[in-house]
Amino acid sequence: MLTLYGYWRSSAAYRVRIALNLKGLAYRQVPVHLVRDGGEQHGEAYQALNPQGLVPLLVDEENGGAPIAQSLAIIEYLEEIFPVPAILPADPVERAQVRALALHLACDVHPLNNLRVLQYLGRELGVDDAAKNAWYRHWVAAGLAAVEQGLAAYGDTFSLGTRPGYLEACLIPQVYNARRFDCDLDAYPRILALTARCEALEAFRHAAPDAQPDAQ
Amino acid sequence: MLTLYGYWRSSAAYRVRIALNLKGLAYRQVPVHLVRDGGEQHGEAYQALNPQGLVPLLVDEENGGAPIAQSLAIIEYLEEIFPVPAILPADPVERAQVRALALHLACDVHPLNNLRVLQYLGRELGVDDAAKNAWYRHWVAAGLAAVEQGLAAYGDTFSLGTRPGYLEACLIPQVYNARRFDCDLDAYPRILALTARCEALEAFRHAAPDAQPDAQ
Repeated sequence: MLTLYGYWRSSAAYRVRIALNLKGLAYRQVPVHLVRDGGEQHGEAYQALNPQGLVPLLVDEENGGAPIAQSLAIIEYLEEIFPVPAILPADPVERAQVRALALHLACDVHPLNNLRVLQYLGRELGVDDAAKNAWYRHWVAAGLAAVEQGLAAYGDTFSLGTRPGYLEACLIPQVYNARRFDCDLDAYPRILALTARCEALEAFRHAAPDAQPDAQ
Repeated sequence: MLTLYGYWRSSAAYRVRIALNLKGLAYRQVPVHLVRDGGEQHGEAYQALNPQGLVPLLVDEENGGAPIAQSLAIIEYLEEIFPVPAILPADPVERAQVRALALHLACDVHPLNNLRVLQYLGRELGVDDAAKNAWYRHWVAAGLAAVEQGLAAYGDTFSLGTRPGYLEACLIPQVYNARRFDCDLDAYPRILALTARCEALEAFRHAAPDAQPDAQ
Protein backbone atom coordinates (compact mmCIF):
# COMPACT_ATOMS: atom_id res chain seq x y z
CA MET A 1 0.00 0.00 0.00
CA LEU A 2 1.24 3.47 -0.96
CA THR A 3 0.33 6.34 1.34
CA LEU A 4 0.78 9.95 0.27
CA TYR A 5 0.88 12.67 2.89
CA GLY A 6 -0.05 15.89 1.14
CA TYR A 7 -2.24 18.93 0.94
CA TRP A 8 -4.72 19.61 -1.82
CA ARG A 9 -3.17 22.93 -2.85
CA SER A 10 0.50 21.96 -2.42
CA SER A 11 1.90 21.91 -5.92
CA ALA A 12 4.68 19.54 -4.85
CA ALA A 13 2.06 17.02 -3.68
CA TYR A 14 0.14 17.66 -6.91
CA ARG A 15 3.24 16.57 -8.91
CA VAL A 16 3.33 13.25 -7.08
CA ARG A 17 -0.40 12.66 -7.54
CA ILE A 18 0.05 13.11 -11.29
CA ALA A 19 3.01 10.69 -11.35
CA LEU A 20 1.05 8.08 -9.38
CA ASN A 21 -1.92 8.44 -11.74
CA LEU A 22 0.25 8.26 -14.87
CA LYS A 23 1.58 4.96 -13.58
CA GLY A 24 -1.92 3.76 -12.69
CA LEU A 25 -0.97 3.22 -9.03
CA ALA A 26 -3.58 3.10 -6.28
CA TYR A 27 -2.72 5.13 -3.18
CA ARG A 28 -4.20 6.31 0.08
CA GLN A 29 -4.09 10.01 0.89
CA VAL A 30 -3.47 11.49 4.34
CA PRO A 31 -4.10 15.26 4.31
CA VAL A 32 -1.70 17.47 6.28
CA HIS A 33 -3.38 20.84 6.73
CA LEU A 34 -0.67 23.41 6.07
CA VAL A 35 -2.59 26.42 7.36
CA ARG A 36 -5.07 25.45 10.09
CA ASP A 37 -3.88 25.87 13.71
CA GLY A 38 -0.52 27.23 12.59
CA GLY A 39 0.10 24.27 10.29
CA GLU A 40 -0.17 20.55 11.02
CA GLN A 41 3.22 20.06 9.34
CA HIS A 42 4.84 21.65 12.40
CA GLY A 43 3.07 19.27 14.81
CA GLU A 44 4.82 16.43 16.61
CA ALA A 45 3.08 13.67 14.66
CA TYR A 46 4.15 14.90 11.23
CA GLN A 47 7.60 16.03 12.34
CA ALA A 48 8.28 12.47 13.48
CA LEU A 49 7.70 11.35 9.89
CA ASN A 50 9.39 14.31 8.19
CA PRO A 51 11.59 16.60 10.28
CA GLN A 52 11.72 19.05 7.40
CA GLY A 53 8.02 19.69 7.92
CA LEU A 54 7.13 19.91 4.24
CA VAL A 55 4.73 17.89 2.11
CA PRO A 56 4.56 15.59 0.22
CA LEU A 57 5.81 12.43 1.89
CA LEU A 58 5.38 8.89 0.56
CA VAL A 59 5.23 5.70 2.62
CA ASP A 60 5.53 2.44 0.70
CA GLU A 61 4.65 -0.28 3.17
CA GLU A 62 5.67 -3.12 0.86
CA ASN A 63 9.20 -1.73 0.81
CA GLY A 64 9.83 -1.36 4.52
CA GLY A 65 7.72 1.74 5.05
CA ALA A 66 10.57 4.25 5.46
CA PRO A 67 9.06 7.69 4.74
CA ILE A 68 10.36 9.34 1.55
CA ALA A 69 10.31 13.13 1.40
CA GLN A 70 10.70 15.57 -1.51
CA SER A 71 8.45 15.28 -4.53
CA LEU A 72 11.22 14.65 -7.06
CA ALA A 73 12.83 11.96 -4.90
CA ILE A 74 9.41 10.33 -4.64
CA ILE A 75 8.86 10.50 -8.41
CA GLU A 76 12.32 9.01 -9.14
CA TYR A 77 11.54 6.27 -6.60
CA LEU A 78 8.23 5.47 -8.30
CA GLU A 79 10.03 5.31 -11.65
CA GLU A 80 12.53 2.82 -10.25
CA ILE A 81 10.06 0.60 -8.39
CA PHE A 82 7.23 0.75 -10.94
CA PRO A 83 9.08 1.22 -14.24
CA VAL A 84 6.08 0.54 -16.50
CA PRO A 85 4.78 2.82 -17.88
CA ALA A 86 7.95 4.90 -17.77
CA ILE A 87 7.56 8.62 -17.17
CA LEU A 88 11.14 9.52 -18.12
CA PRO A 89 12.48 9.03 -21.66
CA ALA A 90 14.87 6.09 -22.16
CA ASP A 91 17.78 8.07 -23.63
CA PRO A 92 20.14 9.56 -20.99
CA VAL A 93 20.47 12.94 -22.71
CA GLU A 94 16.69 13.21 -23.10
CA ARG A 95 16.25 12.14 -19.47
CA ALA A 96 18.66 14.88 -18.43
CA GLN A 97 16.78 17.50 -20.46
CA VAL A 98 13.49 16.54 -18.83
CA ARG A 99 15.03 16.57 -15.36
CA ALA A 100 16.63 19.96 -16.03
CA LEU A 101 13.31 21.51 -17.05
CA ALA A 102 11.61 19.96 -14.03
CA LEU A 103 14.35 21.33 -11.77
CA HIS A 104 14.01 24.80 -13.31
CA LEU A 105 10.55 24.73 -11.73
CA ALA A 106 11.14 22.59 -8.65
CA CYS A 107 14.34 24.38 -7.56
CA ASP A 108 14.21 27.82 -9.08
CA VAL A 109 10.53 28.78 -8.99
CA HIS A 110 8.52 26.82 -6.49
CA PRO A 111 10.74 27.07 -3.37
CA LEU A 112 10.85 30.86 -3.73
CA ASN A 113 7.08 31.06 -3.80
CA ASN A 114 5.90 28.52 -1.30
CA LEU A 115 3.91 29.31 1.81
CA ARG A 116 6.75 29.55 4.33
CA VAL A 117 8.68 31.99 2.14
CA LEU A 118 5.69 34.25 1.53
CA GLN A 119 5.06 34.15 5.30
CA TYR A 120 8.69 35.15 5.99
CA LEU A 121 8.50 38.04 3.51
CA GLY A 122 5.40 39.37 5.25
CA ARG A 123 6.19 38.66 8.89
CA GLU A 124 9.94 39.18 9.07
CA LEU A 125 10.59 41.65 6.28
CA GLY A 126 7.33 43.62 6.39
CA VAL A 127 6.74 43.11 2.66
CA ASP A 128 3.20 44.14 1.71
CA ASP A 129 0.83 42.07 -0.42
CA ALA A 130 1.50 43.99 -3.64
CA ALA A 131 5.25 43.49 -3.35
CA LYS A 132 4.74 39.82 -2.40
CA ASN A 133 2.66 39.31 -5.55
CA ALA A 134 5.34 41.04 -7.65
CA TRP A 135 7.95 38.71 -6.09
CA TYR A 136 5.78 35.70 -6.88
CA ARG A 137 5.25 36.73 -10.49
CA HIS A 138 8.90 37.63 -11.01
CA TRP A 139 10.11 34.10 -10.25
CA VAL A 140 7.27 32.46 -12.15
CA ALA A 141 8.10 34.54 -15.21
CA ALA A 142 11.83 33.73 -15.02
CA GLY A 143 11.17 30.00 -14.69
CA LEU A 144 8.42 29.71 -17.27
CA ALA A 145 10.41 31.65 -19.86
CA ALA A 146 13.20 29.07 -19.61
CA VAL A 147 10.74 26.17 -19.79
CA GLU A 148 8.94 27.76 -22.76
CA GLN A 149 12.23 27.73 -24.70
CA GLY A 150 12.97 24.19 -23.59
CA LEU A 151 9.58 22.95 -24.80
CA ALA A 152 10.53 23.80 -28.39
CA ALA A 153 12.22 20.38 -28.46
CA TYR A 154 8.92 18.54 -27.95
CA GLY A 155 6.77 19.71 -30.84
CA ASP A 156 3.01 19.54 -30.47
CA THR A 157 2.72 16.42 -28.40
CA PHE A 158 4.08 15.41 -25.01
CA SER A 159 7.54 14.90 -23.46
CA LEU A 160 7.25 11.16 -24.22
CA GLY A 161 5.81 11.64 -27.70
CA THR A 162 2.33 10.22 -27.37
CA ARG A 163 2.24 10.41 -23.57
CA PRO A 164 2.97 12.95 -20.84
CA GLY A 165 5.41 12.09 -18.03
CA TYR A 166 7.80 13.56 -15.47
CA LEU A 167 8.03 16.92 -17.22
CA GLU A 168 4.29 17.44 -17.34
CA ALA A 169 3.92 16.21 -13.73
CA CYS A 170 6.11 19.16 -12.71
CA LEU A 171 4.82 21.73 -15.17
CA ILE A 172 1.05 21.54 -14.76
CA PRO A 173 1.12 22.21 -10.96
CA GLN A 174 3.33 25.25 -11.61
CA VAL A 175 0.82 26.56 -14.15
CA TYR A 176 -1.94 26.01 -11.56
CA ASN A 177 0.05 28.13 -9.08
CA ALA A 178 0.72 30.82 -11.67
CA ARG A 179 -2.98 31.09 -12.48
CA ARG A 180 -3.86 31.19 -8.79
CA PHE A 181 -1.63 34.26 -8.43
CA ASP A 182 -2.94 35.86 -11.65
CA CYS A 183 0.38 35.63 -13.48
CA ASP A 184 0.18 36.68 -17.11
CA LEU A 185 0.85 33.55 -19.18
CA ASP A 186 0.36 34.97 -22.68
CA ALA A 187 4.10 34.85 -23.36
CA TYR A 188 4.17 31.05 -23.01
CA PRO A 189 2.04 29.57 -25.82
CA ARG A 190 3.81 26.19 -25.74
CA ILE A 191 3.25 25.87 -22.01
CA LEU A 192 -0.43 26.79 -22.37
CA ALA A 193 -0.96 24.33 -25.22
CA LEU A 194 0.78 21.50 -23.35
CA THR A 195 -1.23 22.31 -20.22
CA ALA A 196 -4.48 22.12 -22.19
CA ARG A 197 -3.46 18.74 -23.64
CA CYS A 198 -2.71 17.43 -20.15
CA GLU A 199 -5.82 18.85 -18.53
CA ALA A 200 -7.93 16.80 -20.92
CA LEU A 201 -6.50 13.59 -19.44
CA GLU A 202 -7.92 11.71 -16.48
CA ALA A 203 -4.55 11.30 -14.76
CA PHE A 204 -4.30 15.09 -14.48
CA ARG A 205 -7.98 15.75 -13.78
CA HIS A 206 -7.97 13.32 -10.86
CA ALA A 207 -4.77 14.86 -9.47
CA ALA A 208 -6.05 18.45 -9.58
CA PRO A 209 -6.26 20.32 -6.26
CA ASP A 210 -10.02 20.82 -6.44
CA ALA A 211 -10.57 17.08 -6.93
CA GLN A 212 -8.85 16.15 -3.62
CA PRO A 213 -10.76 14.99 -0.54
CA ASP A 214 -9.35 17.84 1.59
CA ALA A 215 -10.11 20.60 -0.96
CA GLN A 216 -11.91 23.58 0.54
CA MET B 1 35.28 15.48 -23.81
CA LEU B 2 33.19 16.85 -20.93
CA THR B 3 32.96 20.63 -20.59
CA LEU B 4 31.62 22.24 -17.43
CA TYR B 5 30.45 25.84 -17.54
CA GLY B 6 30.61 27.15 -13.98
CA TYR B 7 31.84 29.72 -11.55
CA TRP B 8 34.31 29.06 -8.78
CA ARG B 9 32.00 30.17 -5.99
CA SER B 10 28.73 28.75 -7.39
CA SER B 11 27.83 25.97 -5.00
CA ALA B 12 25.74 24.26 -7.69
CA ALA B 13 28.83 24.08 -9.95
CA TYR B 14 30.84 22.89 -6.93
CA ARG B 15 28.42 19.93 -6.55
CA VAL B 16 29.08 18.86 -10.13
CA ARG B 17 32.86 19.21 -9.75
CA ILE B 18 32.74 16.87 -6.75
CA ALA B 19 30.63 14.33 -8.66
CA LEU B 20 33.01 14.44 -11.65
CA ASN B 21 36.00 13.94 -9.34
CA LEU B 22 34.34 11.10 -7.40
CA LYS B 23 33.89 9.32 -10.72
CA GLY B 24 37.45 10.11 -11.77
CA LEU B 25 36.29 11.91 -14.92
CA ALA B 26 38.48 14.44 -16.70
CA TYR B 27 36.74 17.65 -17.74
CA ARG B 28 37.43 21.07 -19.15
CA GLN B 29 36.17 24.11 -17.28
CA VAL B 30 34.75 27.26 -18.87
CA PRO B 31 34.26 30.00 -16.27
CA VAL B 32 31.13 32.14 -16.50
CA HIS B 33 31.70 35.23 -14.38
CA LEU B 34 28.45 35.77 -12.47
CA VAL B 35 29.27 39.25 -11.19
CA ARG B 36 31.59 41.13 -13.56
CA ASP B 37 29.92 43.49 -16.07
CA GLY B 38 26.46 42.72 -14.73
CA GLY B 39 26.99 38.97 -15.09
CA GLU B 40 28.25 36.97 -18.08
CA GLN B 41 25.35 34.55 -17.57
CA HIS B 42 23.01 37.21 -18.92
CA GLY B 43 25.08 37.71 -22.08
CA GLU B 44 24.03 36.47 -25.49
CA ALA B 45 26.71 33.80 -25.74
CA TYR B 46 25.74 32.02 -22.52
CA GLN B 47 22.00 32.55 -22.97
CA ALA B 48 22.25 30.67 -26.28
CA LEU B 49 23.54 27.67 -24.34
CA ASN B 50 21.28 28.06 -21.30
CA PRO B 51 18.28 30.40 -21.56
CA GLN B 52 17.78 30.09 -17.80
CA GLY B 53 21.07 31.94 -17.34
CA LEU B 54 22.25 29.90 -14.38
CA VAL B 55 25.37 27.78 -13.91
CA PRO B 56 26.41 24.99 -14.03
CA LEU B 57 25.95 23.58 -17.51
CA LEU B 58 27.51 20.40 -18.88
CA VAL B 59 28.34 19.64 -22.50
CA ASP B 60 29.22 16.04 -23.32
CA GLU B 61 30.56 16.08 -26.86
CA GLU B 62 30.65 12.30 -27.17
CA ASN B 63 26.91 12.21 -26.60
CA GLY B 64 25.80 14.74 -29.16
CA GLY B 65 26.83 17.83 -27.23
CA ALA B 66 23.36 19.00 -26.17
CA PRO B 67 23.88 21.30 -23.17
CA ILE B 68 22.54 19.93 -19.88
CA ALA B 69 21.52 22.44 -17.22
CA GLN B 70 20.77 22.04 -13.51
CA SER B 71 23.36 20.47 -11.22
CA LEU B 72 21.18 17.56 -10.10
CA ALA B 73 20.18 16.70 -13.67
CA ILE B 74 23.88 16.73 -14.56
CA ILE B 75 24.79 14.48 -11.63
CA GLU B 76 22.01 12.00 -12.49
CA TYR B 77 23.24 12.04 -16.09
CA LEU B 78 26.82 11.30 -15.02
CA GLU B 79 25.54 8.43 -12.86
CA GLU B 80 23.70 6.96 -15.85
CA ILE B 81 26.49 7.40 -18.41
CA PHE B 82 29.43 6.59 -16.12
CA PRO B 83 27.90 4.17 -13.60
CA VAL B 84 31.19 3.04 -12.04
CA PRO B 85 31.95 4.06 -9.35
CA ALA B 86 28.32 4.65 -8.39
CA ILE B 87 27.56 7.72 -6.30
CA LEU B 88 24.00 6.67 -5.42
CA PRO B 89 23.26 3.56 -3.29
CA ALA B 90 21.91 0.53 -5.17
CA ASP B 91 18.73 0.07 -3.09
CA PRO B 92 15.76 2.17 -4.32
CA VAL B 93 14.67 3.23 -0.82
CA GLU B 94 18.23 4.26 0.07
CA ARG B 95 18.55 6.09 -3.24
CA ALA B 96 15.34 7.96 -2.46
CA GLN B 97 16.60 8.94 1.02
CA VAL B 98 19.84 10.32 -0.45
CA ARG B 99 17.97 12.22 -3.16
CA ALA B 100 15.54 13.63 -0.58
CA LEU B 101 18.38 14.96 1.59
CA ALA B 102 20.10 16.42 -1.47
CA LEU B 103 16.82 18.08 -2.53
CA HIS B 104 16.33 19.53 0.98
CA LEU B 105 19.46 21.52 0.16
CA ALA B 106 19.16 21.95 -3.60
CA CYS B 107 15.49 22.98 -3.56
CA ASP B 108 14.78 24.36 -0.13
CA VAL B 109 17.99 26.14 0.87
CA HIS B 110 20.19 27.05 -2.05
CA PRO B 111 17.64 28.68 -4.44
CA LEU B 112 16.49 30.98 -1.64
CA ASN B 113 20.02 32.16 -1.02
CA ASN B 114 21.59 32.45 -4.41
CA LEU B 115 22.89 35.63 -5.94
CA ARG B 116 19.84 36.66 -7.96
CA VAL B 117 17.54 36.31 -4.95
CA LEU B 118 19.80 38.32 -2.64
CA GLN B 119 19.99 40.95 -5.38
CA TYR B 120 16.18 41.06 -5.64
CA LEU B 121 15.82 41.42 -1.87
CA GLY B 122 18.19 44.39 -1.88
CA ARG B 123 17.23 46.13 -5.12
CA GLU B 124 13.49 45.52 -5.34
CA LEU B 125 12.47 45.15 -1.72
CA GLY B 126 14.99 47.50 -0.09
CA VAL B 127 16.11 44.83 2.37
CA ASP B 128 19.31 45.91 4.17
CA ASP B 129 22.40 43.74 4.61
CA ALA B 130 21.58 42.72 8.19
CA ALA B 131 18.13 41.49 7.20
CA LYS B 132 19.56 39.77 4.11
CA ASN B 133 22.03 37.90 6.31
CA ALA B 134 19.25 36.92 8.69
CA TRP B 135 17.26 35.63 5.70
CA TYR B 136 20.27 33.63 4.50
CA ARG B 137 20.89 32.07 7.89
CA HIS B 138 17.23 31.30 8.46
CA TRP B 139 16.99 29.04 5.40
CA VAL B 140 20.39 27.47 6.02
CA ALA B 141 19.35 26.60 9.58
CA ALA B 142 16.03 25.10 8.47
CA GLY B 143 17.69 22.97 5.79
CA LEU B 144 20.69 21.82 7.80
CA ALA B 145 18.52 20.85 10.78
CA ALA B 146 16.59 18.44 8.54
CA VAL B 147 19.78 17.05 7.02
CA GLU B 148 21.38 16.65 10.46
CA GLN B 149 18.47 14.40 11.48
CA GLY B 150 18.67 12.51 8.21
CA LEU B 151 22.38 11.82 8.66
CA ALA B 152 21.65 9.73 11.76
CA ALA B 153 21.03 6.85 9.34
CA TYR B 154 24.64 6.89 8.08
CA GLY B 155 26.68 6.37 11.25
CA ASP B 156 30.26 7.57 11.31
CA THR B 157 31.20 6.91 7.71
CA PHE B 158 29.81 8.11 4.38
CA SER B 159 26.51 7.79 2.52
CA LEU B 160 27.92 4.80 0.61
CA GLY B 161 29.56 3.23 3.63
CA THR B 162 33.25 3.47 2.86
CA ARG B 163 32.81 6.17 0.20
CA PRO B 164 31.09 9.52 -0.19
CA GLY B 165 28.70 10.12 -3.10
CA TYR B 166 25.71 12.16 -4.28
CA LEU B 167 24.72 13.21 -0.76
CA GLU B 168 28.15 14.58 0.10
CA ALA B 169 28.45 16.25 -3.33
CA CYS B 170 25.41 18.33 -2.36
CA LEU B 171 26.16 18.80 1.33
CA ILE B 172 29.75 20.05 1.33
CA PRO B 173 29.06 23.02 -1.01
CA GLN B 174 26.17 24.03 1.23
CA VAL B 175 28.46 23.95 4.28
CA TYR B 176 30.94 26.09 2.33
CA ASN B 177 28.16 28.63 1.70
CA ALA B 178 27.04 28.55 5.32
CA ARG B 179 30.57 29.26 6.52
CA ARG B 180 30.97 32.05 3.99
CA PHE B 181 27.93 33.76 5.52
CA ASP B 182 29.07 33.05 9.11
CA CYS B 183 26.18 30.73 9.90
CA ASP B 184 26.49 29.07 13.31
CA LEU B 185 26.98 25.34 12.66
CA ASP B 186 27.44 24.11 16.23
CA ALA B 187 24.00 22.51 16.23
CA TYR B 188 25.00 20.12 13.41
CA PRO B 189 27.76 17.83 14.72
CA ARG B 190 27.05 15.08 12.18
CA ILE B 191 27.25 17.51 9.29
CA LEU B 192 30.51 18.97 10.60
CA ALA B 193 32.06 15.52 11.10
CA LEU B 194 31.01 14.34 7.64
CA THR B 195 32.33 17.56 6.11
CA ALA B 196 35.70 17.05 7.80
CA ARG B 197 35.87 13.48 6.47
CA CYS B 198 35.13 14.69 2.95
CA GLU B 199 37.50 17.65 3.08
CA ALA B 200 40.36 15.24 3.71
CA LEU B 201 39.76 13.62 0.31
CA GLU B 202 41.30 14.74 -2.96
CA ALA B 203 38.02 14.65 -4.89
CA PHE B 204 36.67 17.34 -2.58
CA ARG B 205 39.89 19.34 -2.23
CA HIS B 206 40.25 19.63 -6.00
CA ALA B 207 36.61 20.69 -6.35
CA ALA B 208 36.79 23.44 -3.72
CA PRO B 209 36.08 27.00 -4.88
CA ASP B 210 39.53 28.30 -3.98
CA ALA B 211 41.17 25.57 -6.07
CA GLN B 212 39.44 26.66 -9.30
CA PRO B 213 41.23 28.49 -12.13
CA ASP B 214 38.82 31.44 -11.95
CA ALA B 215 39.04 31.85 -8.14
CA GLN B 216 39.73 35.40 -7.02
